[in-house]
Amino acid sequence: MGEFELIERYFRAPGSQLAHSRPDVVLGIGDDAALLRVPAGRELVAALDTLVEGRHFPVGCPAQSIGHRALAVNLSDIAAMGAEPAWFLLALTLPRTDEEFLAGLSRGLFELASAHDVALVGGDTTAGPLSLSVQALGTVPPGQALRRSGAAPGDLVYVSGTPGDAAAGLALLMSRGARSVNAHESQLLQRFMFPEPRVRLGLQLRGVASACIDVSDGLAADAGRLAAASGCAVILDAGALPLSEALRACCGADESLAHALRGGDDYELCFTVPPARRAELESRLANVKCRVTCIGNITAGSGIRVERDGVPVDADTRGYDHFAHG
Amino acid sequence: MGEFELIERYFRAPGSQLAHSRPDVVLGIGDDAALLRVPAGRELVAALDTLVEGRHFPVGCPAQSIGHRALAVNLSDIAAMGAEPAWFLLALTLPRTDEEFLAGLSRGLFELASAHDVALVGGDTTAGPLSLSVQALGTVPPGQALRRSGAAPGDLVYVSGTPGDAAAGLALLMSRGARSVNAHESQLLQRFMFPEPRVRLGLQLRGVASACIDVSDGLAADAGRLAAASGCAVILDAGALPLSEALRACCGADESLAHALRGGDDYELCFTVPPARRAELESRLANVKCRVTCIGNITAGSGIRVERDGVPVDADTRGYDHFAHG
Repeated sequence: MGEFELIERYFRAPGSQLAHSRPDVVLGIGDDAALLRVPAGRELVAALDTLVEGRHFPVGCPAQSIGHRALAVNLSDIAAMGAEPAWFLLALTLPRTDEEFLAGLSRGLFELASAHDVALVGGDTTAGPLSLSVQALGTVPPGQALRRSGAAPGDLVYVSGTPGDAAAGLALLMSRGARSVNAHESQLLQRFMFPEPRVRLGLQLRGVASACIDVSDGLAADAGRLAAASGCAVILDAGALPLSEALRACCGADESLAHALRGGDDYELCFTVPPARRAELESRLANVKCRVTCIGNITAGSGIRVERDGVPVDADTRGYDHFAHG
Repeated sequence: MGEFELIERYFRAPGSQLAHSRPDVVLGIGDDAALLRVPAGRELVAALDTLVEGRHFPVGCPAQSIGHRALAVNLSDIAAMGAEPAWFLLALTLPRTDEEFLAGLSRGLFELASAHDVALVGGDTTAGPLSLSVQALGTVPPGQALRRSGAAPGDLVYVSGTPGDAAAGLALLMSRGARSVNAHESQLLQRFMFPEPRVRLGLQLRGVASACIDVSDGLAADAGRLAAASGCAVILDAGALPLSEALRACCGADESLAHALRGGDDYELCFTVPPARRAELESRLANVKCRVTCIGNITAGSGIRVERDGVPVDADTRGYDHFAHG
């Protein structure tokens, strides 16, 4: 099967259940570039993230998970800006055209696209070592985007979901593959393979959160980046971290904490809220289903500190660095 | 050197000669996504293309050329839509952080960016087999974008520049590397390593060309795609093809023709113009420096035919298919 037949079959099949379209797509896949209508009076939000086999997902990771994650990590960036995602482009590099793999990949991609009303509008396929670059585009009212840099001393620090699950799920996937696991393990695997970008939460945080970042390289490292961008320090309360029952059941207390602080791949939102807006946050959260937990606060200074009952904990808070591994 | 230091050093150095910025960038590199101001009353144009080592450029290709080409192939897509490029994002996958390589890469990228007033606004770096995905964004007045699908029987077919040079240059690069060559060979090498996206030409073609495509996979294949998208056939005149002196000096007549028809990597524009607008085209071309040649015409039917003096030539017109090679 050639490149063009491949694109037709898995990414542009007319009337396909896979395809998802929007009225603001003037011209989609099939020309030199896509033509898109940005609503008047909105700013454009653009993110580009790549997943490489053996680096962002292990060899043997199910194709549907790879497709889901390639889009999810980019929607997570859009969510962290408090923006509404609209369109995406896909650059797919494949060692060979394996139809079963492509079918799974496009299913994972389009199920998530459809759930968030985002349309695939273009891209590129190439032969080479397996990797996927997704470019996500969204919009936000001018001046309302959430940034990393708006936190101030006294602000409360929150995180969505239960960080650490994805890291534990990845460890399971690498040691045993995606099959034959108990309910807790299955939940952790699911959290690595099918992270849920917090788009609805991000929208509710506009006008409430003072700063926001998505947690991709580890909660501690990303909270530290938010604090650094804001010119502040951050203190995380180890006792307040929302560790899932599944994580605690599968890993010891120390390992659970390490996964939650350093794990990566969570794609949760970490954000700050001034104490005066706490009630407003609570009322906004009634509109979203995901769990949100206060895990610390912002102070003057720089760096990150982890405490338990007010006493510093000797925790490793370094984030994932692609070039420091392997 | 870690990932973040790397980004700082080569892609965001404050006050760096490399950086190129624009007033419509609300928020550039350094947050979860970029924030961009699309001018009121314009459509957004988006393209995403990947270059993989050993596939789109040979191992040992100079870093500056790789950086230039990664952006050039995307600006070429924007040019083919008759749009003005504005911003780009870069997903860079690197086997290791080699400073000399990165310095060359960023030089190639930013020199071209600066020449076309496009700003790098975001992206991603990852460890893995060398590849670059660039996502280029531009804008165009509504309804004025050039498409592949507007050609009609009787329209004249044009190509910019001298197709075939880049393919001959690539052959030289692969057999002998980038050094120790005569003036003709040097010109062909240059055409592969530093293709000039035809942005200014694309802008002049708005309202004049009935259809347009950029020539990346071979002139014959891409002209054939334009014809197919338009529901027509295309006839190319082998005797009219603008073969450069350098190409003819370095390759025989047959090989020159084969390179021009099937070569790929030209990043020229192939476009059609109704005969009634030919005079308008001539006057528009006074505004651009690049050579433009009439090389055939559109007819009813389907497919592509190459003729010389009205007699069909037995030429191979298949394009480059990434999955049919190696």
